[in-house]
Parts: sequence; structure tokens; C-alpha cells
Amino acid sequence: MINVAVLGASGYAGAEVVRILANHPQCRLKHLLAHSKKGKSFGEVFPFFGSLGEIEMEDTDSDEYLNDSDMVFLALPHGHSAAHVKKILAAGKKAVDLGADFRFRDASVYEAWYQEHPYKEICHDTVYGLPEIRRTAIQGQNFIANPGCYPTGATLALWPLLKEGLLVLDSIIVDSKSGISGAGRGLKEGSLYCESSESIKAYGVATHRHTPEIEQNYSEAAGEPVVINFTPHLTPMNRGILTTAYAKLNQKGLETDLTAVFQQYYGEEYFIRLLPQGQWPETKWVQGTNFVFLGFTVDVRTGRIIVSTAIDNLVKGAAGQAVQNMNLMWGFNETEALTMLPVFP
Amino acid sequence: MINVAVLGASGYAGAEVVRILANHPQCRLKHLLAHSKKGKSFGEVFPFFGSLGEIEMEDTDSDEYLNDSDMVFLALPHGHSAAHVKKILAAGKKAVDLGADFRFRDASVYEAWYQEHPYKEICHDTVYGLPEIRRTAIQGQNFIANPGCYPTGATLALWPLLKEGLLVLDSIIVDSKSGISGAGRGLKEGSLYCESSESIKAYGVATHRHTPEIEQNYSEAAGEPVVINFTPHLTPMNRGILTTAYAKLNQKGLETDLTAVFQQYYGEEYFIRLLPQGQWPETKWVQGTNFVFLGFTVDVRTGRIIVSTAIDNLVKGAAGQAVQNMNLMWGFNETEALTMLPVFP
Amino acid sequence: MINVAVLGASGYAGAEVVRILANHPQCRLKHLLAHSKKGKSFGEVFPFFGSLGEIEMEDTDSDEYLNDSDMVFLALPHGHSAAHVKKILAAGKKAVDLGADFRFRDASVYEAWYQEHPYKEICHDTVYGLPEIRRTAIQGQNFIANPGCYPTGATLALWPLLKEGLLVLDSIIVDSKSGISGAGRGLKEGSLYCESSESIKAYGVATHRHTPEIEQNYSEAAGEPVVINFTPHLTPMNRGILTTAYAKLNQKGLETDLTAVFQQYYGEEYFIRLLPQGQWPETKWVQGTNFVFLGFTVDVRTGRIIVSTAIDNLVKGAAGQAVQNMNLMWGFNETEALTMLPVFP
Amino acid sequence: MINVAVLGASGYAGAEVVRILANHPQCRLKHLLAHSKKGKSFGEVFPFFGSLGEIEMEDTDSDEYLNDSDMVFLALPHGHSAAHVKKILAAGKKAVDLGADFRFRDASVYEAWYQEHPYKEICHDTVYGLPEIRRTAIQGQNFIANPGCYPTGATLALWPLLKEGLLVLDSIIVDSKSGISGAGRGLKEGSLYCESSESIKAYGVATHRHTPEIEQNYSEAAGEPVVINFTPHLTPMNRGILTTAYAKLNQKGLETDLTAVFQQYYGEEYFIRLLPQGQWPETKWVQGTNFVFLGFTVDVRTGRIIVSTAIDNLVKGAAGQAVQNMNLMWGFNETEALTMLPVFP
Repeated sequence: MINVAVLGASGYAGAEVVRILANHPQCRLKHLLAHSKKGKSFGEVFPFFGSLGEIEMEDTDSDEYLNDSDMVFLALPHGHSAAHVKKILAAGKKAVDLGADFRFRDASVYEAWYQEHPYKEICHDTVYGLPEIRRTAIQGQNFIANPGCYPTGATLALWPLLKEGLLVLDSIIVDSKSGISGAGRGLKEGSLYCESSESIKAYGVATHRHTPEIEQNYSEAAGEPVVINFTPHLTPMNRGILTTAYAKLNQKGLETDLTAVFQQYYGEEYFIRLLPQGQWPETKWVQGTNFVFLGFTVDVRTGRIIVSTAIDNLVKGAAGQAVQNMNLMWGFNETEALTMLPVFP
Repeated sequence: MINVAVLGASGYAGAEVVRILANHPQCRLKHLLAHSKKGKSFGEVFPFFGSLGEIEMEDTDSDEYLNDSDMVFLALPHGHSAAHVKKILAAGKKAVDLGADFRFRDASVYEAWYQEHPYKEICHDTVYGLPEIRRTAIQGQNFIANPGCYPTGATLALWPLLKEGLLVLDSIIVDSKSGISGAGRGLKEGSLYCESSESIKAYGVATHRHTPEIEQNYSEAAGEPVVINFTPHLTPMNRGILTTAYAKLNQKGLETDLTAVFQQYYGEEYFIRLLPQGQWPETKWVQGTNFVFLGFTVDVRTGRIIVSTAIDNLVKGAAGQAVQNMNLMWGFNETEALTMLPVFP
Repeated sequence: MINVAVLGASGYAGAEVVRILANHPQCRLKHLLAHSKKGKSFGEVFPFFGSLGEIEMEDTDSDEYLNDSDMVFLALPHGHSAAHVKKILAAGKKAVDLGADFRFRDASVYEAWYQEHPYKEICHDTVYGLPEIRRTAIQGQNFIANPGCYPTGATLALWPLLKEGLLVLDSIIVDSKSGISGAGRGLKEGSLYCESSESIKAYGVATHRHTPEIEQNYSEAAGEPVVINFTPHLTPMNRGILTTAYAKLNQKGLETDLTAVFQQYYGEEYFIRLLPQGQWPETKWVQGTNFVFLGFTVDVRTGRIIVSTAIDNLVKGAAGQAVQNMNLMWGFNETEALTMLPVFP
Repeated sequence: MINVAVLGASGYAGAEVVRILANHPQCRLKHLLAHSKKGKSFGEVFPFFGSLGEIEMEDTDSDEYLNDSDMVFLALPHGHSAAHVKKILAAGKKAVDLGADFRFRDASVYEAWYQEHPYKEICHDTVYGLPEIRRTAIQGQNFIANPGCYPTGATLALWPLLKEGLLVLDSIIVDSKSGISGAGRGLKEGSLYCESSESIKAYGVATHRHTPEIEQNYSEAAGEPVVINFTPHLTPMNRGILTTAYAKLNQKGLETDLTAVFQQYYGEEYFIRLLPQGQWPETKWVQGTNFVFLGFTVDVRTGRIIVSTAIDNLVKGAAGQAVQNMNLMWGFNETEALTMLPVFP
């Protein structure tokens, strides 16, 4: 049994870590921290957490939580994790950062798309925790950078094809559709029900910060630099990311049994469900779960493959994957606390 | 470990029984039956049930399932349970009926509001399974009639007040708002997204069949016949029932500490969460869970109490309560498989 | 052709006045004002108003708009209208106030439920503009207090029954369900998509400020003081208010042809649609329109009548009724610019 | 004043023709027909059409409507228009077909993607009615094939770029997101609220029948055959299509002022609203209207242009465009009855 602290527990991703760990037999939720919620009970912020609601929240300015925490989840705005990470690692504790700060091996990429990096030294050696593509590197680690929500769905969609060298690299387009929880719990006009319901729109076109993260992963798989177009869309639903990825198959790709390729990479993955050709994933199928559904087809008229993945942005795209990483870091069963089925409808 | 069969597994309530039992350590899902789905895998009907999707469905016309089932959940349209119940009980197995057929002690009430009763003989002695009001009667039973969704929220709202004799009996009005899953998975124009989204309406006013069921419970609590007005509304959301109940307090009611009354009846109930006065339940807080949130206030200007309860119509209003009953019937821990927290947002 | 100014044009009700007047042949939209939007174009605030988007917005602190405005719509938070109203009337212009400040003949009622009244002198003689119940009083007026959204639906539901003396006065309960635009465009956590979608809740129970406004109207109809219970609910939809009103019929009420009563009062009303008994209104039927649908039934078991009305809170509940009032004030055709049918689905 | 008949008036597109024509000063709605609705009033099918609800519906099997109709709108399933069209044209009347049957100049394309063509003879010379790209050809015509919903948004997105020869033709990808009314009013499980709300999915990938229609338009603009990838998605909203189109710019495209190109083609178009670079259209902005919002950007990293258009699938994507065509066919003002602003929120 380990003691766990969650920083940023008043946001949607932080609360989702709490929801998942409530069912984890080896974890005791010990500290819930959120900026300026000091002294409130967790139940005042979210009235539906049962006995966990009795936990008194602490301010993220305080370090006292570290005294008796073994494992820390950081669900903070980007730029806010570095100071905490330094202290956590210095104290010999483990952590998963759900934010963006340590996802890039090359800190200059972070600085080009985000801002000055607050703790460059550890960027290169921090392990990017997408278990389905680097499980063994994660096992036993002390610190993991949790992937972004869009990059999780986008990376898994094309990873096997890129690893096998089946795609025309400059032909990749990733068109993603996210639920509104992706925008967080902050008060923005665009997140109001009356502004976002019954409507869909693109945003951050050609400028969204998840672009270089997806490119980093694709490049790693391809073994050479890959540049893509990535367009996120805001969709009127609470949760879920549907990614539709397009790429031209090269000659090898056109001659390969692609079902077999996906089967080879993902056939044994508990959290990845491969659909038969012609069936397409729906985000409702993964609501509240850590699963990934993947469907694909090849359009012989254009020589393109279209791959679609559905994930829950708050689970496999954030809190669930973070717990999956924690399980690997501590040597727990990888699926512990993550086997929940979707709430449907 | 017992073997479980679910009849009507292709509907929303039946599928919800499956979702919940997937986490029950003492149950093995053995048979899933649905009319005319014979030979299909469960995964063809609902693609997101993981390994349970491999179960081959059976037709409800067949009785073979009884051979190796210990416990049966019936989630069938009303009028369809009786023939099954006879066989199940004759075979010495246990069952919970999620339908309406055995909820009335007095079969003539059923016949006045529904249709001719197909199996009157057992009506009077069948136990109505609302654990919070008759836990001991349920324990060890072989057959339980599971309450309706609206009656669950409505009964719990006023039960303590009626038991204590605090209300003017002819003053009770129950105004309920249900999500659209309450209408089932059948193809009706009114259940289409385009017809039901962004809209709310009353239906079945003064004629809804849950009226006499609520009245049966209220009458039992009051010790004399109670007649009410009950109005259900269809609300644009997947799940949830919010009930707003109104009643005049009698002199004793006006002089009683009502918070203490609710505390006395429900303070120890795991699934009931009492809110402080002035806080009101939201159906989102119970999404996917077996919990009941209850809030109330007294309007001194009119002498009325207003009580509001929120439940998930498919869980506490159907499948979750059915599993809770099963737990009591078999002597399992009452909360087994039912401690899940809401998927929020 | 008259020149019109809208104060509070950046909110939902103010923008709805603009949408409606865009089709009014006798009105020219001349001034759009909103606090702190000075210098922005209306198209920057709402990008979909076509050529009206070119209007440069003015600050509500400025009075210059009055120079060439004939008619003013005030869509401001309560407490903010008084200063404007004084100037508008002094300048000999006409105005409709969509806010609450002048809805009460008795300023002390306002002060009991809201706050100190900023301009008591005119309260008693200001005409409350619900055309279907006081059309002639509105005609030719210079200043009208526009009814609240809930009071519009609630008043029309019971007005004929109260006028005819058919109800037991202390038995009235009004249970209303509103779309989220009723909460306005302000940034509140409860108005976020992720907090309010897929959920319904009561709020302001026994304390909502529309209670005394409904009571004022009911009392006027009954000819004696009426006290009610009013419970509003927040419903996951953009627009619409469904009101379900309950009352006991007195002996006269039980003996009266109630269909004939509604027909007598509303049969000639263009904006009121009476449904046959057993059919119930849906808010989707009035989306974007100034219409009111009304259905009712009598429950002979309890002696109560249940009446349900559906309106669009932003149209008949606010901007549409305000334009209807303007039409009467200026002698225009009462339905001018208000004949639009609902956008369905 | 002309007499108008609508065939298929009980569907969403047919009813939308009625809604729009209710405001058309030169049209009298004379006949509303729908299969098997004979004898019902239109108000029984849609209770919110006011006095139009009194029209008695006729069966589409009858031809009597032709006697006193001048103009016919056909909103029927594909394959059902041909027999009607023959009679209408033989009778010297005018018609717009909202279905797919006459959209292809080359009937063999229709037969490859749909089914055997029932009336090939007129395919080649039938005018495809997208006014913004072929206004003069539509003027005065007797028969117009109304474009599909997806093809309208997709064609307008890239038309100017293709006409000017700025794109790499084999690089085009069209990713579209439609509201659920696009699936019609038929009873399908996938159209239920509980199945489609809170979820998004792709469908018809590489097989959707609007693909060859988009390709026909793109090919015409480019002056040579164009083959594309088109992926539609079902989005949880009533109305709207957002199209995100991707294409590589050729050398000329990279050197061209693309804002000027869009301005040249669309700057004078009443129904097309060009957004400044960096602003992206939302389907909510066009709800219930005939407008098209268009935004675009160039990603210099990949050399691709991304263009996004928002339309209301039932208006500019169906009924509104049909009325726009009628206006041109009869010499009415092109925008007559089509200037309505969106219902927002």
C-alpha cells in the first residue's frame, strides 16, 4: 500500500485520478492539493466522492504533503510542474506529470511551441509514458511524462504503420475531435453550455501545441523527421477524442496485410480493441474507460489509409494512462483499477 | 461463485446489470438472453464489453439457461416475466424481476393500470425490493420484485416523513424528470436525438403507471391510503431521475426537526447522501452509480416541505438496485460491485 | 420608421432583441450598448449578425445614444435600469425594461426579495407588460416593465382559472424547468457545458425572486392574495421553459368546462396555442419563437388540474415579449417581426 | 404569387422548405405530400406550424396536386423522384429535386455509387444548383438538382482555389462533421438520443455517396479529374456541417494572395461570410440560416492550406438552397425568405 498525492485535484483530470485510485487496492489517497482551495474539503469541490470527500485540501504552495507521500500525480497547468518535480525527485519519491513540460526530449521544441523551459536538465532522459509503445522503459522509473490527450489517440493510430515503414511521410493529416472537458474547468466563454452545445468548430489550426508532440512520436517511429498537419475540433460532448488520421501508403504499404500489422503490434494489448474493417469506433464506447478502439480502411482509389481511434480524453488521454504508468513504475498489475467498462448510454 | 443469467440483456437495463456484475467477485456471467438475438455475440450488440462480448446470446424462448444458472435477472417488458418466473422458482433458483409485474401486492391494482395479470398467485407475498425501507425482508428471499425507477426516487424522498406522520396526506405532488434511457432502446420517434434533445416535456400526466406503485409505498408508510399527483417529464440527458416532491406539513411536521428525521432513517445508509439544507442534488452527481442524493427545505410561507432526490434511473432505479437485492438474497456484502463513483463530467 | 437603442446588447436577451428587430420593417437598429464593449463592433461580440455586425458598440455609461433614439430596450442586470429610465422618460422617449426593477407595483415587495429600490416613485403606475392579460393598458404607454421568463409561463398557465375563481388558492404549486441561457452569458462554473450538460437540478427553492412576481399576477387574477410554491430547475438545453402548474379545483372548478374557459381567454390569441387534452407541450416546439403552447388535464382522483406551458425563455420570456410590447406602445401590428416559426429540429 | 407543393413534407428537409416558404411573399403553400400521411393534417405531424398546420396532407401516390401547383419541391429518398419529375416537366411546371438522382451529369457515376438510374435521359442537361458557382445557368430553369449537404460545404471550401489552379490535385482530403438531422427522421438505432448523444464517430469512410458528387464539382473547377478522400462524421448536435478541407498548395498557390482569391470569388456573395485568418467558423453561427462561414489558414511548415466551412445542413445544405434556386428560377429576389439570422444560443 502506497500513499498518493494529487496536485491539481480540483480540475477534471486531477479528479479523474482520484476516481480511478478510489478503486486501487494498493493506493491510499492521502493528499489532495489545489491552488487556493486550502482548507476546503474535497467534498465541497466535488460533492460526489463519498468518504473521500472528507479529505481536507491543501494548497499547492505547501510541501508538507511530501513527508508521507510515496507517489505524486501532477495535474497542473504547464509551467507549474518543474518546481514540484525537483523536490519530489530529491525526496526520492515517484511522480507522473500529466502536464506538457517534460514530454519533449528536446527542450528547444518545448520552448518553440510553449515558453521558456523551467527545468531543462531532465528533459532528455525523462521517459514519455505511452505504455503500448514503450512499456519496458517505463517499468521501475521514478518519473514519467504522461502523454497529451490528442497525441495518445494520434500516436496509437499510426505507430505500427510508421514503425514498419509503410507510409509516405509527408502525407500525414490528423483530424481530431475532442469533448469539451479537454478545455478544462476554467471559466471561459467558449466553454459555456450555451456557446459550445449544438456546435462544432476547429481551433488552433496549424498552431496547436500537441502538434510537435505527435510529430516527436511519429518521427521516433519512422526513424526520421515527420511533419504533419494536425487540426483539433471542439465537439459538443463531455468526454472523448476521436482521431481520424490520413496517410498515403507507400509501395510496401500497399502490398502489406495491414490487419496483420495492427494485430502484431496491438493484438495482445489489453487496452486496445481492434475493430474489423468497415466498423468505426465511437467515443461513447470508451466513456469513463482506459480503452482505445481502432478502426481502419484503405481507399484503393487514392492509395490512402484512414485510421480512426476513440479514447476518453480524461482517462486514456490523461488520468487513466497516468495510473497505468504508475502501475508499471511500481510493479503493480498494469491494469489494476483500470478495467472499468463504459457507462453506456 | 454463482452463475448468473440475464434475460433482456440487449436493452439498457439488462446491459447495465452486465456492466455491474462484471466487477462482482462472487458472480460469473453465464447466460445472456434476448429475444431474437440468438446466435449473435454480445459484442455484436454492444461492442464495448471486452471479453464478455464473446458470450453467445440465447433466445429468451429457450429454457436451457436454467440448467446451470443460480441467479436470474429479468429485464423484460411487462407481462413477459411470469412464465419465466414460474420455471425459475420451480427449479429452485433465485431471481430479481426488474419489470413491473410483481410490484403490487394487490394484483387488481396491477390490472387496473396495466393489463390482466399473468400470475396472480404470488403477487401478495412477493417482496418489493427497496432495501433502504425493507432490508430484512429481502435477505434470503428467492424472488424479489425490483422497484420502478420513478418510484425509487419518489419513495425515498418522503418515506421518513410519512412513517413519522408529518405530512398532510392529500397534499402530495411528485414532479419527476427522467433522462431518455428511461424510454428504453426501442425505436420510437420521440426517442430520436433530433426530437428529444434541446427539449423537455411532460408525458403520461395523471395516467403514468408508476403512480399506483408510488401510492402503494406511500400508503404503506402512512398506514392509510394515499393518493397523489405524479407527473413525469422527459429530459434531454442519457441518465438520471430528479424528483421534486411537495407536501404540506401537518402540525407535528411543523414542530419536528426534519433534518434529524432524515438522519435517523438514512444516516447509516451507504447509498443515501443527505445534503445540507439549501444544497440541491444534480443528476450528474450520480451518473453510473447506485447513490441517492437527497436535499430538502421547508417553505415557511406555505407550510410545505420540498424534497428533491437524484438517482441514476438505470442503476439505483434498475440494475444497481437489482444487484443490491441479489447481494441481500445471497448473503453477499450489500455494496458488493456497487461502490463505483460517478463519471464526471 | 423609428430609431431603436438596445442597452445590454452583448447578453443573450439583448442580442435576441437585435435578432428580432432585424426583421422589423418599422425599426432601425441605431445604437447597441454594453458595459465595457465600447469601440468593439457588434460583429466582434457576435460574428453572425450580418451587416448589423458593423455597428460600433457604445458604453452604457454614455447618454449620447438618446439624442437620436425613439425607443430603448433595457436588457441590464437588476438595479441598473433606474438611472437610464429616468433620463429616457425625461427625454420623452419610450422604453421597455427587460429587467426586474419595475415589475412590482409595490416597491416594498421588490425590496424584500431583491434590494433597495433605486427609483420607487414610478413603481406603482408602471404597466406590467404581459399583453395577453393587459393589452389595452399597454397600448400607447411610454414605459413598460417586461415580465420575467418564469412568470410569463406560470401566469399564462393559471390566469383564466384564477380569474374565473375555479381554484383552491392555497393549493398552487409551480414547477418550472428552464434552459441554461436563463443563467445568462456570465462566466459561472454552473453554466459550463461540462457541469450542466447531462444533468438536471432544482435551485433557488422557496427563495427564487420570480416567486413574488408570479404571486403578484395570481393575486391580481384572484382578487385576493395568493401564496405559492415555485421551484425552478436548470435543464440541459439552450432555450425554453416548461412550466408544470398544479392546483386543486374548487367546487365551481370541478363543475366547469375548463376547455371552454381556456378557449374563452386564449382562443383568439395569436401567440397562444391550446393543445387538445392529453397532448403536452414540448419546449422544442417554441424554439426561437414568441409562441406559448398550453396543455392541461384534470386528475379526477385528486381533484387537481395540471397545466403545462412551453415558451422560449429568450423570446416570449424576454425579447419577443418586449418587442410585442413595443408594437403595442407604438401602434404597430402586434405580431410584427414575431411570426417566425421554430427551428426544428 | 405562385402555388407550391412539397413532396416529402413529413421529413426534416421537407418541413424546412415549409418553414422557409411560410415567410416568402411570392409563394403560397398549397400542397404538402408525404407517403402514407394521407388525410392527416400537417399539424398532426408537426404541431408548431401555426395556420399551416391546417393543411390536409396528401399521399405522394396521387398526382392531383399538379393541377394547381406552379412549383414543386421534391424531398424524397433517392430513386423516388424520377416518376414525379417526368410528370411535373410534362405538365410545364417547375421543380427542384433535393434528392441525389439528378446531381450527376454522367448517369453511370450515379449507377456506380447508388443504383440503376430511373431516368437517365435528362441527367446530362440537368443544372446542378449551387448558385454561388453557377448562378446564371440556374436563372429561368425549369428543373434544378439541389446539391447534397456535404458537397455544398466541401465544394464552396475549395472552388476558388481549384478554379485558379492553386492546389496539388491528388492531395485533397475532406473531413466533415454533420449533425444528426442529416440521418433523417427515420427510426434507426444510431439516431436515438441515447446512442448518438455524447459521442462522435466516422461512418461511410471511403464509401459515402457524396464522394463522387464532391469530385464532380472539384473536377469541373480544376478542369481535370480529381479524386479525393472524404470522411463524414456523426456529431451530437441537431444541425450543422463543419467541413475541414486539406490540400497541398502548388508553387502558384504558395505565391498567391489567397485572401484576395476568396475575396474575388465570394466577396460579393450575400450568403458567404469570409472570416479573417485565424478565426474559425462554428456551426452554431449558421443554425437555421442559409449562410456559409469560411475560414482558412496556410501551414507553411507543410505547404498545405486548411479551409473550414460551416453550414446548416437543412438550410444551405438542403431546403434553403432549394428556395434560393427557386428564387433564381422564377426571377424573384435571390435572398427572398432567406435572410433569417441564427437562433443563438
